[in-house]
Amino acid sequence: MKIKRVEHIAVAVNNIRQSIAMMRDTFGLEMEYEEQIGSIKLAMLPVGQTYIELLEGVESGDSVQQWIKEKGEGLFHICFEVDDIESAIAELKAKNVKLQSDTWRNGHAGAKIVFLDPAGTGNMLIELAELAPGH
Amino acid sequence: MKIKRVEHIAVAVNNIRQSIAMMRDTFGLEMEYEEQIGSIKLAMLPVGQTYIELLEGVESGDSVQQWIKEKGEGLFHICFEVDDIESAIAELKAKNVKLQSDTWRNGHAGAKIVFLDPAGTGNMLIELAELAPGH
Repeated sequence: MKIKRVEHIAVAVNNIRQSIAMMRDTFGLEMEYEEQIGSIKLAMLPVGQTYIELLEGVESGDSVQQWIKEKGEGLFHICFEVDDIESAIAELKAKNVKLQSDTWRNGHAGAKIVFLDPAGTGNMLIELAELAPGH
Repeated sequence: MKIKRVEHIAVAVNNIRQSIAMMRDTFGLEMEYEEQIGSIKLAMLPVGQTYIELLEGVESGDSVQQWIKEKGEGLFHICFEVDDIESAIAELKAKNVKLQSDTWRNGHAGAKIVFLDPAGTGNMLIELAELAPGH
């Protein structure tokens, strides 16, 4: 598996509009796109070759709200870009690295994504993503 | 202030040697350099234009150990690269953005660094760094 870059750094927030405004007003960072996947609203702000991904959960107890309840707002996970998610998953399984799901699912901007079990990564929550063509 | 890139993503760990080995064995990421600043050991692993910065505190109650005590191991802070730390600090002060110190101090690889007060950034711990020449 070749990690190409940190594609995004995800941040759990209570109010995505306030956080977008803070990132613009404090750092001059602008949003490139936003979408909603299930109960999770996301906003992507490019910084060099990485995005800051602001995440707000709109359903009680969803993964973002659960994170904030346990840890507070703040850094949530990082996402490494890979060329081929299926071969990355096969490689991790062959190394007995535990994943949070048996296979990939669709994530931001049509990417194929999978999360590793943080029990195997020193409690870091790490996502792998194969980006959709054009991203 | 122009944010050039996410220079690093810092991770608080209990055992930096184990974490270096995990990042190599799981993701194929190799360490580029390591150093110790005060009681904090750090190891820098390049991923595209960003580093993963593994941090282990070796003194009881230092900033890394305190973080782990409160939140557990895992993502700790992110660092944005700026061209000129003094003008960035002046700009933030003019906007009434609170910093953790009144001026910059020396950080990794001779960089000039400052941390923002996370109370003003939605609980994200954010460092700004002006890198030393050659970095």
